[in-house]
Amino acid sequence: MDTEILKYMEPKPASESLTIMTDLVLPQETNPLNNLFGGELLARMDRACSIAARRHSRRIVVTASVNNVAFTKSIPLGSVVTVEAKVTRAFKTSMEVICDVWIEDRESGEKTKANEGIYTFVAVSEMGSPIGVPLLKPETKLEKERYDGALRRKQLSLILSGKMKPEDATELKALFMKE
Amino acid sequence: MDTEILKYMEPKPASESLTIMTDLVLPQETNPLNNLFGGELLARMDRACSIAARRHSRRIVVTASVNNVAFTKSIPLGSVVTVEAKVTRAFKTSMEVICDVWIEDRESGEKTKANEGIYTFVAVSEMGSPIGVPLLKPETKLEKERYDGALRRKQLSLILSGKMKPEDATELKALFMKE
Amino acid sequence: MDTEILKYMEPKPASESLTIMTDLVLPQETNPLNNLFGGELLARMDRACSIAARRHSRRIVVTASVNNVAFTKSIPLGSVVTVEAKVTRAFKTSMEVICDVWIEDRESGEKTKANEGIYTFVAVSEMGSPIGVPLLKPETKLEKERYDGALRRKQLSLILSGKMKPEDATELKALFMKE
Amino acid sequence: MDTEILKYMEPKPASESLTIMTDLVLPQETNPLNNLFGGELLARMDRACSIAARRHSRRIVVTASVNNVAFTKSIPLGSVVTVEAKVTRAFKTSMEVICDVWIEDRESGEKTKANEGIYTFVAVSEMGSPIGVPLLKPETKLEKERYDGALRRKQLSLILSGKMKPEDATELKALFMKE
Amino acid sequence: MDTEILKYMEPKPASESLTIMTDLVLPQETNPLNNLFGGELLARMDRACSIAARRHSRRIVVTASVNNVAFTKSIPLGSVVTVEAKVTRAFKTSMEVICDVWIEDRESGEKTKANEGIYTFVAVSEMGSPIGVPLLKPETKLEKERYDGALRRKQLSLILSGKMKPEDATELKALFMKE
Amino acid sequence: MDTEILKYMEPKPASESLTIMTDLVLPQETNPLNNLFGGELLARMDRACSIAARRHSRRIVVTASVNNVAFTKSIPLGSVVTVEAKVTRAFKTSMEVICDVWIEDRESGEKTKANEGIYTFVAVSEMGSPIGVPLLKPETKLEKERYDGALRRKQLSLILSGKMKPEDATELKALFMKE
Repeated sequence: MDTEILKYMEPKPASESLTIMTDLVLPQETNPLNNLFGGELLARMDRACSIAARRHSRRIVVTASVNNVAFTKSIPLGSVVTVEAKVTRAFKTSMEVICDVWIEDRESGEKTKANEGIYTFVAVSEMGSPIGVPLLKPETKLEKERYDGALRRKQLSLILSGKMKPEDATELKALFMKE
Repeated sequence: MDTEILKYMEPKPASESLTIMTDLVLPQETNPLNNLFGGELLARMDRACSIAARRHSRRIVVTASVNNVAFTKSIPLGSVVTVEAKVTRAFKTSMEVICDVWIEDRESGEKTKANEGIYTFVAVSEMGSPIGVPLLKPETKLEKERYDGALRRKQLSLILSGKMKPEDATELKALFMKE
Repeated sequence: MDTEILKYMEPKPASESLTIMTDLVLPQETNPLNNLFGGELLARMDRACSIAARRHSRRIVVTASVNNVAFTKSIPLGSVVTVEAKVTRAFKTSMEVICDVWIEDRESGEKTKANEGIYTFVAVSEMGSPIGVPLLKPETKLEKERYDGALRRKQLSLILSGKMKPEDATELKALFMKE
Repeated sequence: MDTEILKYMEPKPASESLTIMTDLVLPQETNPLNNLFGGELLARMDRACSIAARRHSRRIVVTASVNNVAFTKSIPLGSVVTVEAKVTRAFKTSMEVICDVWIEDRESGEKTKANEGIYTFVAVSEMGSPIGVPLLKPETKLEKERYDGALRRKQLSLILSGKMKPEDATELKALFMKE
Repeated sequence: MDTEILKYMEPKPASESLTIMTDLVLPQETNPLNNLFGGELLARMDRACSIAARRHSRRIVVTASVNNVAFTKSIPLGSVVTVEAKVTRAFKTSMEVICDVWIEDRESGEKTKANEGIYTFVAVSEMGSPIGVPLLKPETKLEKERYDGALRRKQLSLILSGKMKPEDATELKALFMKE
Repeated sequence: MDTEILKYMEPKPASESLTIMTDLVLPQETNPLNNLFGGELLARMDRACSIAARRHSRRIVVTASVNNVAFTKSIPLGSVVTVEAKVTRAFKTSMEVICDVWIEDRESGEKTKANEGIYTFVAVSEMGSPIGVPLLKPETKLEKERYDGALRRKQLSLILSGKMKPEDATELKALFMKE
C-alpha cells in the first residue's frame, strides 16, 4: 500500500465533510398545501449528504440507504432552506451522513430546525465496486454523540432488513438491557 | 359521530390502497454512473406511498417520516420501473406504507426487485391538523407479516428520535429479550 | 429463423402489455387555470403507451404518431391520475396503443374517465431500423372492439398524411358505403 | 352586441396567429437513443399551437384534442428546433391549429421538416365556458389547402370519437364517393 | 485556406442570425410574486442568444459572458413571452448578441418590451478550442447603432474584469472626454 | 420612524449576507459538450444572490439587473459546484451582490474558481414597490475593494442603459482622466 493511499486513510475530522446547500423553495417543488414536497426535500438531502460523503472519501459515492428522515415542520413556498450535511461515522466502505434542515424567517432572520435525515453512502471505484474510506474523527460534542449512536443505528438497520439477528446486535441489546 | 364518518372508520383491506406507478427512467433523473439518482427514486416512492395513504384514508396526507429505504440494486437509464405501494398498518392518525420497487428486463420480461421503502404518512384536515383514519385489515401472508412488524418499527423510530424510552418499547424489548 | 425468435412471434394477449401509471398532478404541470397542461398529459400518455408497446414487443420502441387524443375533462392540480395503456393491435413492425386516463375523487374514491389517447409505436433494432413484432390476441369485449377499429384508424391516418388514396382504404370505404 | 365585440369577430388572416418557437433540444428531453422524446415534442407543439390559438381568439384557450401528429424524423440532442404554428380554420368556439417542426443543419444552415401536428383548441371565458371566436381568412396557397381540409378532419375526429354518424359526414362521404 | 472556409468568412447580414423564441411562462418558472424568475429568464435568453450565435457562425458556441441584462418589467405567470436575439457584432472568435424580450397583452394583442440582454459567445471547434467567425454586416438603423456600441461595451467588460487598462480603451475614453 | 425600522437601517456587515449554495451538476443541466449550461448557472447564481440580498435587507427582493458574468472555466457534469454570494454595497433601495463560483477536484479536494457574477437586486414591499435597505459595512480587504468598485459599476450600467450621461459619472470619469 503506497503512501498516497495511506494518506487518504488517515482519520479525518467531521468538519472537513461539512456541506452547506442553501436554496429557495421553488413553485415546482410544492405540494397542494403550498409546502415543499416530502419527496423533493428527500432528493435535496440526498444530494447534500452525497457531497459530504464524497468530500470525506474523495471517491464516487452511491446512496446505500435512508435510515430515518422525520418531517417535523412543513416548509412553505418561497422559504430559504439550508441543508447542512456532515459525515458522522465511517465504517469499512460505508459512511453514515446526517443532515439538518433549517429555515429562516425573512423578517427576523431567525433560524428554525425543520427536520433531520440519516443517510448511508458507500464509496465505489470507477467500476462500481465498494472501496475503503478513511476513518472519521468527531470533534464537537454533537459530532461525538452522533458518532456514538451510528453503530447502534447501523445494527438496527441490519435487523430491520433481516441481515442481522437481534441477539448479535450487542450495542442495541445493551440499550434495552440496561434498565 | 355520524354514519358517514363511521363508514370511513370501518377497517379496510390493504389491497384497497394498492398503488402502481410504472414509468421510465428519464435522462434528467440519472447520476454520473447513468443510474437513477437515489434522491429521484426517493421522490417517486414518496409520491406512490402518499397516493396509497390517500386511498386508504381519503384524506389529504403529508409525509411524516421515511423509516427505511435500502438501495440494493442500481437502476440504469431507460429502465421500466414499477413502484408498488400499499398501506401496511394504520394507527390513530398515521399510516405506515411500504413500497416495493421492481425493474423488468426488456428482452425476457423478467421482473427483479430493486429496493424497498418504508414511509409514514399522517392524514390531515384542510386546515392541516391531524385527523383519524380507518384501521387496516391485512389479508395475504405478506400483508400480515408487514402488519405485525409495523408496531415494532414505529417504536424503533420513536426511540431513534428520542420520543420514547427504550424501556417503554414493549414489543421491541421482547425481540431482544427472547433469546 | 431460430426457436427463440419464433417464440417472440407467437401472438400475445393484450393483457400482457397492460401498463398502469398512477401519479399526482404536480404544480409544475399545470396551466393558468390550475389544471394539468395538455402538453404534460400528452407526454405522460406517450411514456405509458411506449412501455405497453415495449412490453408487447420486447424491443426498443419509438413513437410513430399520435392518432387521436381528446381532452374531455380537465384535471385539477393535486389530482391522482391513472393512465392505463394497452396494445390494441400489432401490425408488421408497428403497434397501436390506446390509453385511458382516470381521475379519482379523494373523498368518495370514485373513478371518472378524463380522456383517451391513441398512439402508434414502431419497434426498432439497436441501430434504429424497424423490426418485426408478435401479433396481438384480443380477449375481452373492449379489446376486441378496439382491435377491430385499429385497421380503420390506420387507413384514416395514412389518408390524412397523403400516404394512401381514399379508394384503397377498403375498410373505411365500407364504413361510409354501408348506409 | 357592442362594437368592441364585433371588432373581435371580423375574420382575421391566418398570418396574424403565426407563432415561432425556436429552442434547443436539451439533455433532459431525450430518450435512450439520444433523440428528442416524442412526449416532450408533443408538449412543445401544444404550447406553440395554444399561443397561435390565443393570438387568433385573444381568449384563454384550452387543448380540446390532438388530431394527428406524425413523427417522421428523429431529432437528435443539441438540435435547433423550430416549431411554427398557425390557426388553419376557426369554427364557432374552436380552432384547428397546424404546426410544422423544422430542424436545421448547423454547418450548412439548411432546414428540414421533421414532423407536423394537428391540434384543436377551444376558447373559454375566465369561468371556463366556451366562447365565440372570429373566423379565419386563409391567404396563401398552403393556408387555403389546410383551411379546406379542416372540416373533413373535424368530421373524421367526430366519427372516431363516436360523436357523429358516418352518414352525416357529408364532406367525408364525398371523398370516398368521388371515385 | 480553401473556398468552403472562405465562404463562411464572408460578412453576413445581422438578419441571418435572427432567432425568435415564443413561449408561455409556466408555473415552475415563477417566483413568490407569481412573476417569471429572473434566473429562468436569463436561461431562456442564453438559449435564444446561443442559437443566434450558432446561426451566424455555424459552429458550436459557448457563453463567454453576460454583459448586461436589465429587468425593467416583471412578467406574470401565463404571459406569452417572445425573445428575439440577433448577433450585433462579430470579433475574431467571439460575437456580441443582443436579445429583446417582449410580452403581449392577450386582449389587445399589443406588445410591450419587458427587458433586454447583452451576451457574448465564443465559437469553438469540436475539441473546444476557439475558432474564427465571419464578420457581421449591420443593415437597419438599430443594427448599426448596436454594432457601433459593441466595441465600447467590449472594452468596458475587459476593464471590469481587469483584462484591459482604462488608458488603452480608446473608444471609451473618447466617450468621457468628448464633453 | 419607529425603533424597529431604525434597527433595520443600521449598517450591517457584508458577512451577514453570506450565502453558500453547494450542489451537484445534474444531467439535465448540461450542454452538448457535457458541461453545465451557461443559462442554468445564471439561474443558480441568481437564486444564491437573491438569498444574500434578502438576508441583508430582510425584504422581498427582485432581480434588477445582471451587470456582468464571465464564464472563464467550463464545469463538467457531476462536478460539485459552490456558489458563494455576498452583498457588496447597498444603495437607497438596491443592492449589488457578487457571487464567486468554485468547483472542487474530487480526488485532491482542491478548489478552483470557475467564474464570478455581479447582480443588482431591489428590495420591494409586499405590494411590489421599492423600499429602503440598510447600508453595508465592508470588513475584509476583498469586501472593501468590491465596495469601492460598486459605485463605478453602477454608473457604467446607468450609462450603458442610457439613464445617465457620461459627464455626470464623476467616479468613472476620474478613472479615465487619471492617466
